[in-house]
Amino acid sequence: MDWETLAKDLTVSNDAKIVLLVLDGMGGLPVDGKTELETARTPNLDALAARGACGLTNPVLPGITPGSGPAHLSLFGYDPLRHQLGRGILEALGSGVEVGPNDLVARGNFATFKAGLVTDRRAGRLATEINARICQGINAAFASSKGAKAPFEDVEVRLFPGKEHRFVARFSGEGLDDRLSDADPQKEGKPRVPAKPLAPEAERAAAVVNRFLDWVTDLLKDEPVANTILVRGFSKFPSIPSMSDLYRIRPAAVANYPMYKGLARLLGMSVLDAGAETSSLFDALEKHYKNFDFFYIHYKKTDSAGEDGNFAAKVAAIEEIDAFLPRLSALGPDVLVITSDHSTPALLKGHSWHPNPFCLVSKYALPDAVTRFSERDCGRGILGCFPALQAMPLMLAHGLKLKKYGA
Amino acid sequence: MDWETLAKDLTVSNDAKIVLLVLDGMGGLPVDGKTELETARTPNLDALAARGACGLTNPVLPGITPGSGPAHLSLFGYDPLRHQLGRGILEALGSGVEVGPNDLVARGNFATFKAGLVTDRRAGRLATEINARICQGINAAFASSKGAKAPFEDVEVRLFPGKEHRFVARFSGEGLDDRLSDADPQKEGKPRVPAKPLAPEAERAAAVVNRFLDWVTDLLKDEPVANTILVRGFSKFPSIPSMSDLYRIRPAAVANYPMYKGLARLLGMSVLDAGAETSSLFDALEKHYKNFDFFYIHYKKTDSAGEDGNFAAKVAAIEEIDAFLPRLSALGPDVLVITSDHSTPALLKGHSWHPNPFCLVSKYALPDAVTRFSERDCGRGILGCFPALQAMPLMLAHGLKLKKYGA
Repeated sequence: MDWETLAKDLTVSNDAKIVLLVLDGMGGLPVDGKTELETARTPNLDALAARGACGLTNPVLPGITPGSGPAHLSLFGYDPLRHQLGRGILEALGSGVEVGPNDLVARGNFATFKAGLVTDRRAGRLATEINARICQGINAAFASSKGAKAPFEDVEVRLFPGKEHRFVARFSGEGLDDRLSDADPQKEGKPRVPAKPLAPEAERAAAVVNRFLDWVTDLLKDEPVANTILVRGFSKFPSIPSMSDLYRIRPAAVANYPMYKGLARLLGMSVLDAGAETSSLFDALEKHYKNFDFFYIHYKKTDSAGEDGNFAAKVAAIEEIDAFLPRLSALGPDVLVITSDHSTPALLKGHSWHPNPFCLVSKYALPDAVTRFSERDCGRGILGCFPALQAMPLMLAHGLKLKKYGA
Repeated sequence: MDWETLAKDLTVSNDAKIVLLVLDGMGGLPVDGKTELETARTPNLDALAARGACGLTNPVLPGITPGSGPAHLSLFGYDPLRHQLGRGILEALGSGVEVGPNDLVARGNFATFKAGLVTDRRAGRLATEINARICQGINAAFASSKGAKAPFEDVEVRLFPGKEHRFVARFSGEGLDDRLSDADPQKEGKPRVPAKPLAPEAERAAAVVNRFLDWVTDLLKDEPVANTILVRGFSKFPSIPSMSDLYRIRPAAVANYPMYKGLARLLGMSVLDAGAETSSLFDALEKHYKNFDFFYIHYKKTDSAGEDGNFAAKVAAIEEIDAFLPRLSALGPDVLVITSDHSTPALLKGHSWHPNPFCLVSKYALPDAVTRFSERDCGRGILGCFPALQAMPLMLAHGLKLKKYGA
């Protein structure tokens, strides 16, 4: 029996409130002897560490660096080795694009194509309004063009503009398998590449996608910068049980990036939109606090700074969120967990496999000797080093939302 | 390959003696800053912690609160998510009731039934002798009554009296599936409820059980207090390998509660009866020490005090058992483990999910810096926080009862 089966059997609904604050990519590595967390001044995180039970979590397995999708799935109690999500579906759902069972979605970029080579994979990060105008033009041309559809007249394609050069592409039609390679050379100065079928069942989808890419590139030939598109992360709507079905909770997500909102929608969370300002995360939480009993709050700046390799910016991002924590504590959640989906050490300029600091505060948690919230301090916590997949059972248990197993 | 397969391949028989002392429900939570264990004066437990290797165990999974059955199975090396035991079978076996492959057993209570409602689920905790007299009357009436049997003439039913209001019911006949809900309203002031089949195969068993319950209620209508019965925990004899087959040991259990004796019998242990006095556990151990090489000793008072929410009584129970430990050490077992099946914090008045302190003393164990036996001290032990399912391999290994795996 696995956790999902167990959860369905054992969870009970009650009024206890659980708040899970995810500081994306929070964990780091030392530069001059101290990690980003160890360098930051974090009186509020430290006070919570002192009150709570601490540990370290492995998102997937020790040594495995996860993408944001699997890392978050694990935190929400879904085995990331069992449930695999395409980035395209997350982006689509996060952008509010409707996706049905016959839809194949992908993330797209406008790009610059010259003399047979992709010279700029982001088309100079074109203005968001220009992106919207070009997408509209493509959609209108597709709707009126026989050329775009033939020989796939039963497939509809639509582009949904995002920020700067980004969009979501949706291909709607029967039998569009998502086992396709990315139609993206990944590096500049290379030719365009077609989507390749990774299974025989995906041959039709590859033909449809590649026909569309060629047609768009021809259509855009007079655009100065955005004259081709690259698409990647092909995916269909996965079948995954909702958090409310599994856990008998009313879950809400407070996030402002499409990817995380998409993941939240996929798991059946209500998405409470937050603005770009960090304060808006807490505004949304406070406003809706009475309406839900599980809150996932996503803070992105720690990860972005880590990805940029900017140690000082990551320290500042940690200190920024720390200052908001009294607003969270003031709500008095029955269970408060502060952790991360994965580490993003500035030293590595990207996600890493290092385990995540984890702190759980609840009147039923046994406080340990940890009084500072950092990688090495949490490593001495009473929860030890454990799979992130166990975070959800722990949160539910401390909220008294799990019945006894067996007699 | 799982542990059971590995165990069959790798275990060897030798003379090393292993003693596993289970202080039921020992782990707790702080009240005024200290847990029950931290409050208790435990010079002998502390001395063992100082000599041994310490850690914390999770009975099933972090966050999962186990019943006594799964928690004990795990300690004995049986995956509790794979082997699921009904409480009825444990109670029956513990009470010395013989159970065969065609027998369906359940735990029962005499109860008081007035004006269509169950007014006392324990019939005023009636005297044990009255219980025995009523059971005898029911068994005799059933043996002579056609009415009780029809329309299930091929089923025999017998009640085995226990203490106060408790008994074990055994239904013997072909095709009695145990997938039945409890015939117990669980709360007082409610009507009687029938057993409901949880699978189509259990429809016959439900009909038999409910027919019997109605007949008994009619038979007892002139009893003043014990005038109906409630039955729950329907179960059949499970197929589970014995500890001697798996581990090549001669195991014995020293316990005085039916449930734990039942579990021990189920796993093929010899049960050395102990009286209600704590000293009798050690009397039995000393008396039979030469005849076995694995001893499971069950101490119940810690759990009972925790269930009652009586912090002081739990502290006293811990101090009481501590005082007996020199008798255990004097026997000089090759491997001594002191731990618990699950935690029962007085704060929660029931079982909980918190991991259990664990201390292993053996000349082949690496002592750590832990010098006090408590939840938080063991949390800093060299064994870390680990699944209780790994306790048995560790005990056998330190007794040099496990061969090398592979060449």
